[in-house]
Order: sequence, then structure tokens, then C-alpha cells
Amino acid sequence: MSKNLNIGLFGFGTVGRGLFELLRDVPMPNVNIRRICVRDKSKDRGVDADFTDCIDEIFDDPEINFIVELIDDAEASFNIVSRAIMKKLPVVTGNKKMLAHRLPELIELQRQYGSTLLYDASACGSIPVIRNLEEYYDNDLLISVKGILNGSSNFILSKIFNDNMPHTEALELARREGFLESNPTLDLDGWDSLFKLIIIGVHAFGVYVSPDKIFTYGITHMNDNDIRFAREKDRRIKLVAHVEKLADNRLVMCVIPQLISRNKYIYSVEDEFNGVVIKGLFYDKQFMFGRGAGARPTSSAVLSDITACLYDYKYEYKKLRHSESLPEFTDDISFRIYVRYSDPVDLGLLHFEEIYESYSSKGYNYIVGRVSLKSLHASREALNSRKVFLAAYPYD
Amino acid sequence: MSKNLNIGLFGFGTVGRGLFELLRDVPMPNVNIRRICVRDKSKDRGVDADFTDCIDEIFDDPEINFIVELIDDAEASFNIVSRAIMKKLPVVTGNKKMLAHRLPELIELQRQYGSTLLYDASACGSIPVIRNLEEYYDNDLLISVKGILNGSSNFILSKIFNDNMPHTEALELARREGFLESNPTLDLDGWDSLFKLIIIGVHAFGVYVSPDKIFTYGITHMNDNDIRFAREKDRRIKLVAHVEKLADNRLVMCVIPQLISRNKYIYSVEDEFNGVVIKGLFYDKQFMFGRGAGARPTSSAVLSDITACLYDYKYEYKKLRHSESLPEFTDDISFRIYVRYSDPVDLGLLHFEEIYESYSSKGYNYIVGRVSLKSLHASREALNSRKVFLAAYPYD
Repeated sequence: MSKNLNIGLFGFGTVGRGLFELLRDVPMPNVNIRRICVRDKSKDRGVDADFTDCIDEIFDDPEINFIVELIDDAEASFNIVSRAIMKKLPVVTGNKKMLAHRLPELIELQRQYGSTLLYDASACGSIPVIRNLEEYYDNDLLISVKGILNGSSNFILSKIFNDNMPHTEALELARREGFLESNPTLDLDGWDSLFKLIIIGVHAFGVYVSPDKIFTYGITHMNDNDIRFAREKDRRIKLVAHVEKLADNRLVMCVIPQLISRNKYIYSVEDEFNGVVIKGLFYDKQFMFGRGAGARPTSSAVLSDITACLYDYKYEYKKLRHSESLPEFTDDISFRIYVRYSDPVDLGLLHFEEIYESYSSKGYNYIVGRVSLKSLHASREALNSRKVFLAAYPYD
Repeated sequence: MSKNLNIGLFGFGTVGRGLFELLRDVPMPNVNIRRICVRDKSKDRGVDADFTDCIDEIFDDPEINFIVELIDDAEASFNIVSRAIMKKLPVVTGNKKMLAHRLPELIELQRQYGSTLLYDASACGSIPVIRNLEEYYDNDLLISVKGILNGSSNFILSKIFNDNMPHTEALELARREGFLESNPTLDLDGWDSLFKLIIIGVHAFGVYVSPDKIFTYGITHMNDNDIRFAREKDRRIKLVAHVEKLADNRLVMCVIPQLISRNKYIYSVEDEFNGVVIKGLFYDKQFMFGRGAGARPTSSAVLSDITACLYDYKYEYKKLRHSESLPEFTDDISFRIYVRYSDPVDLGLLHFEEIYESYSSKGYNYIVGRVSLKSLHASREALNSRKVFLAAYPYD
């Protein structure tokens, strides 16, 4: 290791501070945070570091040869990351929302300028899922990637299912533990999982699908009846992100709560952990499991991205660039779901292809039936405004 | 992908045939097995391929630009692999026994000739543990790697613990399923786990320790009393390989059956699966899980090594080359073990530092006590010839 990295760091929130503390507690002789750009440099942060509120003071410093971008704002994040790429400064980002929206542009910019952008820390906290998809599952055997990608919502679901904690109390606890995003709907409505799924899709199958095309539905509307239903079937409700290549080379992607049976790996993924099941021909299933939220796991993932740059590692986007027949995104498939509703009129939104079960009582009604992802997607906004909760209900 | 790989394959056993079938069923346009070297080329193998029994017909073929070595014989494997390196032909091997004994020479040869040798397939079947240690856990945060690295012995233990299958019947079933090595003591006495552990040690901590220095003990002597003891404590016996860097930068390595409690990840690793727990500062624990034995998972791992070479991937042996203070191997630590014995005289072999429990009855006696790894290592051969079984018995 001959290179010395002098880092210009953007952002000093949970992960930024985590990285700072990590490098303070376990110093690396050739990695050094030179300056930190924050919105308000006058704020006392209780650490001995060189703060600035001027972006140019990072980019114009000739000593800074590395950018780490850990801010919340997606638009500002894109500006910083693209500026770094164009200046040929290696850059690490943790902003999954930005990546999920702007990845094609950033891939093109990297190609044009021959620069390096890494973001393993953006998907799944400490689990190196991007790097594994890029480097190890880089052949045509891969069938699907499925997992719990959001630690916060999983923490809440665990508290409800394991500790019988009321919904609101679980939410409050997640907030106190620092697991929730500043905007909790990002976690609870599935958006955070979606952003990670989109990044995974690019590295797993070489296909970028924009966020608005993918059906995304979270756990905000879940209530005690749904929890009881799951328990009666010996299942747990988990918020699952899923990308799968079908036999006819079509690609399905969605984020939806699922009723998961006990024999599934992700049934046992609890608390703020993430778990990813990678399925392929020949090797069957691989399961990776680790902490998915919190300052320390995420900042250690950022550190792995940084040390990778010391060795000139870069994503090759092999599948995107080299595959001869990339799979084509579709939402034209149907599957079994559970739908709890209050007003029967709302069922009209769902276009059931088949109804398998229906139950009614005072205050609790549900239907188990078959719907297409396409029809769900078309009704998503309407569904979110009604007293309805839905969850995929796989046969196994 | 512009390169075309014309593979010279050595060996057509379980994994060699698996690779052949994989490339037949899921063809890759630029990967092609050109010739296969086997001991007896006249044997009818029921496949359409060009067989030879002459090593030179592989190495002297100017079309062959890639070597895959999947034979059993460690000495012959070393000769083939080192010859490939010296001819600057990229080479993939699955021979963990050979690697565990000769890795330092092969690392030096690679350096000298600038060649590529990959062997992710050798450790843990389809779990990409080497690649992850090399690429992702490449900083100083790593504390330990611990896992079930041998699918066959784990299959047997699962059958005994879950299906109440008698020991001998479980062994027979494992043989029928094709999970056992041609020499089953390699699996059952822990040698296969040891070889993998040594390879992991090199990539995790940059330290090579030769096989004779590491205490290795398997499940051959386990009997029904031991199984009952484990069940009474709500634990399972698992054959665990373990490498850990202590706070004072000493490195401990061993392979030993352990009484594993229910709250541990590896408690739930069943059948022929492997499971590896990677522990570090900040990210806490990561768990990787997948099929660890069988033709298809292992040959898909070989394919991942092959496709990595298409992109000029090579191990950097970062820690071995660049660490400033490599940890030092020691067996000077002690821990709690369970020892079942018949003849009290045999206890003299064990040099207990402390005895916590002792139990005697007609036909079943055990002691729970504290011993040093050093003393166990010194008595290993003697222990193996007595009616004694021992297992680590951690406090948690």
C-alpha cells in the first residue's frame, strides 16, 4: 500500500460521524480525513476536525485525493458525486436514493472520465451484496435476489411479532435507537428497500429500472388483525424486496410485505438485521446476513469501499456492458395475496383474477386471491389512501 | 468480454464432471473445455469430449490458455498448478489439501511469474468466503472467522441430531449421497475443515500456519452418550473450524467439535450446508450460508473462479504483503471442554488446569474442565487411540 488517501468528507450525520470515529479508534496509517463539509460549520460537534461549509474548499484543495459523500439530500449528493467523477477523484457514496434515480448517468460519467465510484455501503449496510453480485455471481447462473433490505422496518416487525409490542410503541423504539431515516416513510413505505433493490438489479442482472416503474408497498397500514392472521398461519410478515429473472428472460421486481413461512431463511432475520437470499442454477441458494442499520455497521461498509479504492478496485458493470440478451422488465405476472379491507368498494381497485378465500366479520374482512403486479401498480396510490393492507402470500 | 478461454481440465471426478455438465447445460460463448486429462482415457464416461492421459497434451497445446485442476492427488495437483503458474497460464484449483500444505510456495511462484491462481472453490463450496475476506474484509477490523466448513460431517451430525439416525446409518447415507471424500477420515477427523481453515487464515489475517501446528480433532469417536449430553444442555455438536485474532495480536486456530447453543448462527446450519460467521469491530457479525458439498455447488464455485479470470481478477494477498504487524500464531490459550472417557488413566493425557464437573456411572463418565490448546495438541495422537471423545464447551 503506497497510496495515501486524504479524504474530503461531505456530511457528518450518523454515518459520517461513524466513519470519523472508526478511523479515530482503529487508525489506518494511509487513510486520513482531511476536511469535512457540513451545512453549518459553527455547530459544536465535539470532535477535533477541520470543518467547512464551502464545497469548493474540498474540491479545490490539491491535497484531497478522495471524496466520501454521506449527506441526505439526493440532489446535492448527485452534484458532489458527479463533480468528483469529472475531476477524476475516486468517490464513495452512501446515498441510495440518489443512486436509484441517477445510476445510469453516473455509470456513463464513470465510463467517460475513467473514474471510480463505489457504493457498497448504500445497499444492505454491512453485507457486501453489491461486491458479491459484481464479482462472484457474475455468470449467467443467477436467478433471483430476495431479501430484507431495510433494517428499521424489520426492527419494528420483530418487536411486534416477537415481543408483542404495540405498533406505535415499536415505531417509537426504532426512532429512539436511531434506526429510522429522518423521514420514516422512506423506511416504512418501502422506498428505502426499493432504492437498494434498484442498485442490486443493476449489478445482479445488468438492468436499470427507474423507481416509478416498480410496485412498492410498505407496512404503514398493517394492523393487529394482519399480525393475528400471520400468526394463525405460522408465518411472519416481512417487508421483502425481490428481483427475479423468469425462464423467458423477463425480469420481475417489487417491494411488498410478505407472509413468510418458518422454513424460509428470511423468516429468522430479526431486529435491525438484513438478510439476502441469492438463488441460482447449480449453487441453489446462498444466504448472507448481517447488521443492516446503525452508524457502526454502515460506516465499516464505507471503510471497505475506501480500502477497495486503495487497490484500484472498481465496479465493472459486467452484465450491463457485456450481456448479449439482457432480461426485460415486466410487471405482467400475477401471484397470491392477502388483502384486509374495511370498505368492500375498495376491493374494486384490485382486479382479482381469482378469489381463493374470503372472510368477513364485524371489523375484520379479508380476501385471499390472485392479482397481477401490473394492476397493483396501477392502483398503488389509491390503495395507500384507503383502509386496506396487502401482503404477498406465497404457497410455500 | 473479448477473451476466449480454452480450458485444459485435469480430473473428471465429481467436480470435474459437474463443471463439464454445467458448461454443457448453461453454455458460455467464450468458455470452452478443450481437453480433459484423466488417469485412464479408455474408460467410457458417456460424454462427448476430448480425453487424454498425457499431461503434456494439455500443456503443449498452444490453443489451451487456461488450466482447471480438479484431481484428488495433492502431489500431482501441486505439479500441475505450479507448472501452469510458471507457464503463465491462469489456473484454478479445488485441491484444498495441496493448498494447505503448499500455499506459501504457490504465492511466491505467482509473485515471481506474475501469474494468476484462484481457488475460492476449495474453501466452503459455493460460499465465496475467500473472495470476501480478500476484497471486503481487507481492513484491520476483522476479529475472527468461525464456521462449519465441512458439509459431509455436518450432514452426518444433522441426521443424528434431527432424525435420531444411528451413527453408522448416517455415515452410510452420507456415502450414498456422494458427500464423503474418497477417504472419509478426511471429513470426519476434521482434516478437510483444517485445510480450508488454513487457506482462510492466509486471506483473513495474512498468516500461513502449517497443518501440523494446528490442533485438529473430529467426530469419529462421538457416541450416543455425547449426543445425549448435548441434548440435555439444549445444544448440538458441530464440527467447528475457528481462527481468531486476540487483543494482544496473537492468532489462535483449531478444528474441534463444539457444543453449540441454540442462540448461535451455526446451530441452525444443517445437512450438507456450510456456514461461516465473520466477526469484526464495528460491523459485529456477518453470516454467510450455502451449500458446502456436492458436484453442482462446487462446480458453480469453480465457474465463478473461471469467469473472474476473464476479468483479470487475482488475489492480492493484501494482508500477507502489506500488514505492518502480522499476528503471531499461538496455541497457548485454554478453554472449557467436555471429555467423555472410559479408562480414568486416559485423563492423564489431558492436563486439566481446572475441573468444573465430573460424572461417573457404569459405562459413561465425563469431565468438564479447562485445558490448554497446547496440551491437547501434544496429546492428539494418543487421544485418538483411546476411548475418549472431547468437545469444546463454550460458556454462552
